[in-house]
Amino acid sequence: MTGLLWPGDDRCDGLLTDDALLAAMARVETAWLAALVETSVAPASVAVDLVKLLEPGDTVTVASAAESSGTPVLPLLDLLRSRLDGPAAEWLHKGLTSQDTLDTALVLGLREACDRIRHDLAAQVASLAALAAAHRDTPRAARTLTQPAVPITFGLTVATWLGGVLDAAPQLTAAARLPVAIGGAAGSLAAATALSPVEDLVSHAADHLGLPPALPWQTRRGAITRLGDALTGLTDAWAHIANDVLTASRPEIGELAEGTGGASSTMPQKRNPTLSVLIRRAALAAPGLSATLHTAAGEQRDERADGAWHVEGDTVRTLARRTVIAGSQTASLLRDLTVDVARMAANLAAARPGVDAEQTRVTGNADGPYRGVTDAIIDAALRRAEVFRAAAR
Amino acid sequence: MTGLLWPGDDRCDGLLTDDALLAAMARVETAWLAALVETSVAPASVAVDLVKLLEPGDTVTVASAAESSGTPVLPLLDLLRSRLDGPAAEWLHKGLTSQDTLDTALVLGLREACDRIRHDLAAQVASLAALAAAHRDTPRAARTLTQPAVPITFGLTVATWLGGVLDAAPQLTAAARLPVAIGGAAGSLAAATALSPVEDLVSHAADHLGLPPALPWQTRRGAITRLGDALTGLTDAWAHIANDVLTASRPEIGELAEGTGGASSTMPQKRNPTLSVLIRRAALAAPGLSATLHTAAGEQRDERADGAWHVEGDTVRTLARRTVIAGSQTASLLRDLTVDVARMAANLAAARPGVDAEQTRVTGNADGPYRGVTDAIIDAALRRAEVFRAAAR
Amino acid sequence: MTGLLWPGDDRCDGLLTDDALLAAMARVETAWLAALVETSVAPASVAVDLVKLLEPGDTVTVASAAESSGTPVLPLLDLLRSRLDGPAAEWLHKGLTSQDTLDTALVLGLREACDRIRHDLAAQVASLAALAAAHRDTPRAARTLTQPAVPITFGLTVATWLGGVLDAAPQLTAAARLPVAIGGAAGSLAAATALSPVEDLVSHAADHLGLPPALPWQTRRGAITRLGDALTGLTDAWAHIANDVLTASRPEIGELAEGTGGASSTMPQKRNPTLSVLIRRAALAAPGLSATLHTAAGEQRDERADGAWHVEGDTVRTLARRTVIAGSQTASLLRDLTVDVARMAANLAAARPGVDAEQTRVTGNADGPYRGVTDAIIDAALRRAEVFRAAAR
Amino acid sequence: MTGLLWPGDDRCDGLLTDDALLAAMARVETAWLAALVETSVAPASVAVDLVKLLEPGDTVTVASAAESSGTPVLPLLDLLRSRLDGPAAEWLHKGLTSQDTLDTALVLGLREACDRIRHDLAAQVASLAALAAAHRDTPRAARTLTQPAVPITFGLTVATWLGGVLDAAPQLTAAARLPVAIGGAAGSLAAATALSPVEDLVSHAADHLGLPPALPWQTRRGAITRLGDALTGLTDAWAHIANDVLTASRPEIGELAEGTGGASSTMPQKRNPTLSVLIRRAALAAPGLSATLHTAAGEQRDERADGAWHVEGDTVRTLARRTVIAGSQTASLLRDLTVDVARMAANLAAARPGVDAEQTRVTGNADGPYRGVTDAIIDAALRRAEVFRAAAR
Repeated sequence: MTGLLWPGDDRCDGLLTDDALLAAMARVETAWLAALVETSVAPASVAVDLVKLLEPGDTVTVASAAESSGTPVLPLLDLLRSRLDGPAAEWLHKGLTSQDTLDTALVLGLREACDRIRHDLAAQVASLAALAAAHRDTPRAARTLTQPAVPITFGLTVATWLGGVLDAAPQLTAAARLPVAIGGAAGSLAAATALSPVEDLVSHAADHLGLPPALPWQTRRGAITRLGDALTGLTDAWAHIANDVLTASRPEIGELAEGTGGASSTMPQKRNPTLSVLIRRAALAAPGLSATLHTAAGEQRDERADGAWHVEGDTVRTLARRTVIAGSQTASLLRDLTVDVARMAANLAAARPGVDAEQTRVTGNADGPYRGVTDAIIDAALRRAEVFRAAAR
Repeated sequence: MTGLLWPGDDRCDGLLTDDALLAAMARVETAWLAALVETSVAPASVAVDLVKLLEPGDTVTVASAAESSGTPVLPLLDLLRSRLDGPAAEWLHKGLTSQDTLDTALVLGLREACDRIRHDLAAQVASLAALAAAHRDTPRAARTLTQPAVPITFGLTVATWLGGVLDAAPQLTAAARLPVAIGGAAGSLAAATALSPVEDLVSHAADHLGLPPALPWQTRRGAITRLGDALTGLTDAWAHIANDVLTASRPEIGELAEGTGGASSTMPQKRNPTLSVLIRRAALAAPGLSATLHTAAGEQRDERADGAWHVEGDTVRTLARRTVIAGSQTASLLRDLTVDVARMAANLAAARPGVDAEQTRVTGNADGPYRGVTDAIIDAALRRAEVFRAAAR
Repeated sequence: MTGLLWPGDDRCDGLLTDDALLAAMARVETAWLAALVETSVAPASVAVDLVKLLEPGDTVTVASAAESSGTPVLPLLDLLRSRLDGPAAEWLHKGLTSQDTLDTALVLGLREACDRIRHDLAAQVASLAALAAAHRDTPRAARTLTQPAVPITFGLTVATWLGGVLDAAPQLTAAARLPVAIGGAAGSLAAATALSPVEDLVSHAADHLGLPPALPWQTRRGAITRLGDALTGLTDAWAHIANDVLTASRPEIGELAEGTGGASSTMPQKRNPTLSVLIRRAALAAPGLSATLHTAAGEQRDERADGAWHVEGDTVRTLARRTVIAGSQTASLLRDLTVDVARMAANLAAARPGVDAEQTRVTGNADGPYRGVTDAIIDAALRRAEVFRAAAR
Repeated sequence: MTGLLWPGDDRCDGLLTDDALLAAMARVETAWLAALVETSVAPASVAVDLVKLLEPGDTVTVASAAESSGTPVLPLLDLLRSRLDGPAAEWLHKGLTSQDTLDTALVLGLREACDRIRHDLAAQVASLAALAAAHRDTPRAARTLTQPAVPITFGLTVATWLGGVLDAAPQLTAAARLPVAIGGAAGSLAAATALSPVEDLVSHAADHLGLPPALPWQTRRGAITRLGDALTGLTDAWAHIANDVLTASRPEIGELAEGTGGASSTMPQKRNPTLSVLIRRAALAAPGLSATLHTAAGEQRDERADGAWHVEGDTVRTLARRTVIAGSQTASLLRDLTVDVARMAANLAAARPGVDAEQTRVTGNADGPYRGVTDAIIDAALRRAEVFRAAAR
């Protein structure tokens, strides 16, 4: 549903869509059947690949029938059972509860989202490191509260952008380690344990899905809020870049430009900084979404919340998709960014002598360089970038 | 995209979907062509119904091409032009800018959303009025901070719910009066006026769309924030009802129950208060969305904002759709709500003598009735309900 | 507590502070005693002015003792009773509940906040109207997505700002009509009615406080959310002005400047656009606060919510104070705004021929004026301003 | 300012108040003077303890003069200079910018807030571990979507609460490591480096303040958003506990009670679960505040943002103080929580046979225990608690 009104949406094709989630739910149920078989709880004939049973149109059917139980799991089970015969229909979902299926399906999609973002982070970091190194000595006026402050170099600006991205990245790495989410009716795994007192069905299912095993976390939603916070933290960092590009690409300033500008439907001359606009857009919306995840986490109640769980899926899915898009757009923006060194110098010159006033006050004149720890900052950012890229390889 | 993870989504079928918005965009361009013809600016052959030119799959095509210009309008125009010949291709969109087409298309969808909500509001008000009247004298314990407070009647509780809904409704009525949103490249309608110096093209186009005319409001986004606030205000009011149903349908309390409970995927005995859960869900998410609309309104800049406009469409569309769903669910909830008068009386009796302590302190005993202005509150709510229903007819 | 970290706080001196609220709570209890006497429920000796009993240090005493009952009302009553003798100590607060006292005290403060804002709105509107009229014909480049779009006049820009403010003002006027908030233990006024079956104690108390009477609204919090929305809507409108001033006061653009710039602690040359910075700051924070008010309204439960009411007071007080400050700062900003007509013309000239491309495409050349409905927009804004100022007088 | 309207505020006495922040700002300037002396940049006479120069009333003076420069630092410097003579007045603040002083002062206060919270976390964890161990086998009905689900033990409920708290704690530990925040006029430390080309003044100052050194982070605000997210994550976890206590302390359920209930101003019988109400209150407000911190982080621009920095201080201070209060209240709540084992058993019995339906369906009868991995969950939580407490010692 978000495609038309969220330009760039196709950068996120197939990820966490309704179709993808329905298939992921079928994957979870498939893994559970396999676990039941492997542990000799169920007969071998039960090990069916349910994903293959899905048909075009199922998503609409399931979605339409989801309201009465409050989740799409029950109608999916009904539909799958109608296409299974014999014991598989009977064993399907035995020992699970709806939340298990939906949460674990979401985990699969969210982990893929994190992977995609990390891929784009590596590209961003490479571009930023190259820009910081290339412009280590490119003079430019720092601006504070919109006004020229002191001379800096564009390399310092880029090292700060890079530092912001590298500050935010570890939270994603940590939050991306989402484990399997299976707890049974009330988080005690009572039914699963009754079916298989010796073997751990959850570990078997997790293995099949390539997920780490975990004790139930049905009402401990920190894993979701931490992911939301990590995604929003990234968008924050990207938005600083976008904001600076937007300011600097105003023709009166003219220091930066997007590689390819965006067209207007009525003004032929327009080359709009569209990627920056769209990245900034994502940052304006993300805090409201991650706040909703926190509100939901704080509204947990009993052994399954009465609405707080239900608001989470669509919220975190939207946030994850938008962050994937913004991350990809930021990688594109940085790859093609155009730097006008001459305009930087000209704007700095025009800001004189005011922009030299601090130096004059402190050192008596404005004759020497006034770089402070610029090189230390750039070097530190480049080292961190190198470490990040080595880890990402 | 939201169907699977937002159970009840089919209550909002076809409204403000990508397909619906694409068609609405074509309607806006159609109206503009008609206006150009009517005012003799363009030849009669230009009056084409563009909606008929749309084909299945166009939404995906347009959405995929939206990023470079930051909106879906330009790719839609490309596609329409490829299917038009001669002067219509040339006159298409002349005098408009992308924001005009998209904003006015959204206006069409948002007005329909408001209409649907008002329809469900009328049903809610009817149910609430009937419940308030029927239970004017049904004794019940008031609870404050979760603890029994003083005796009230269930009619008072319902009258308060009804009052909350009626308090929120006028904001929707006011906010629903969204006008046409056409301003041209920079909100001065310069191109349109150059094309037609005498006649007001915008009024003609608005007429075709059944919308009130209006001066440009491209960066004055109060119309959107007020709608968001109105929608959130309604969800707030419905959530109070849902919260009370959720509490009272706990079996230990047992005073209220949903008409049809929702099933569980693993627990056969379950009759979950699913509608209340889903209404409550909507209320947890709405404030974050309307806050984003305000953030966007406060981030307006220049004659078209650099991201703040772009975040608005998908946000308000999501909020509107969810409010339509929650409003319909609330109507269903109230229509079928089951009241257990005996349990209300039993819980009140069990709370004695504590629940009578205030009365005893104030009047010396707890012998007489202790209704205060209960009847005045119920009567006032019923009168307001009558006025509302008369206006809604 | 917010003074040091919210520069400009002294524009809001004494409003809705802890001291002011404690006095207002005493005023509410005083009005209630007066009502009891007037209706012959209590003896004449009970009509004490409790505000006079307050002493320096009481605020700290009361605040420190507020936790156990969850509100400051009970400790205030304890303190007042210790300073009263005889019947007044006994009659104090009889028939009220804590929420009545605190909510009505807040209402008194919030109404004063609205009055102050309206006063500053009148000044803003006067400045904006003068600017719009003075610069009706001052040529300037419109910018969309940060890039030059088409020629406009600065008067159009100002008329849009003015329109935004005038769009937001009526919501404040409507929301400012907060009535007395007295409902008794559970919103039925049972105790008050038992004390005075014939006369309406609430109306008497409301009269004393200069407030409109009202039926209880203890859990219908739309009056609070509507006020929060109105305040946020104003801040949104002011932020658009601030954002445009911030952009245009960059020296590379140089079209606007604050009357008096702000100094830096280290850079002698700095003249920062501080008022715009501080107005913008308010707009970044307001949506989060009004969202919290909505969350609280949606978390109403029973006849007094278990936390949702308790979060409201400090949130709405902070939002109201900050809006008073931002409104006053906006009035100052606009009164002293400096317009550089020559820079506007120079920037427009530098944007040629691109900025004329739409006109050339539509009319074949860029020779004539290209004002569209600029004058209609300015005239409409000036008329609305006149109506507003007449109503404000 | 928040005391009266935020009951429990005195649990946070003196922390991050205006007075405390003014003193902390003076501490930062003192440390800077000491660093200048230690590195032989300034004469020894300059090493003054500025905190001793502060007088009652300074906070008001400084706050009142903060608007024109947008921060309280400049007026504080003016005031200190008026009380210094000779070289100290001249050397004061040399090489710093206002943001350095204010950010580092905030860091000092925020670190203290984190320390206090960790202290209360240790107490919470001890209480929760004791409760989980004591009630490992206490039968109770799990509730999902408000309805009885399957039998569990109260120990499982507590282990889930404990797990939630332990999930959130590491984020606080990580976020609490806030370093010194000194970057000079534009984040390059140009002036400081010009004063002392060899020695690192920042490290010396950081040493004096007991803070880790750090390269400038003036526009990389992840350290602040991560702290905000960590604080909100804790409040989320505490709110789940509070919500469950609120539900279970309804007399119809009666399974839990606060140690000391809160009184009402009008209902003598009332023993309100006030601590839970107040903890819940904090959780309703925290997401809006941390969202504002993210919005501010995403609105960074240039080398010092034009408003986004200015909104941060008061927001994070409020969030930190409220979290300290809620953490302390949660420790009190848990220390004194009363558990009614008999009511748990009775409610479970009343929920039969429905509550046994899953077990019957899965195992054929409801005869044996149905604990699943309850003991594994409790044991894991107790082990994690032990590790946490060992680290906290």
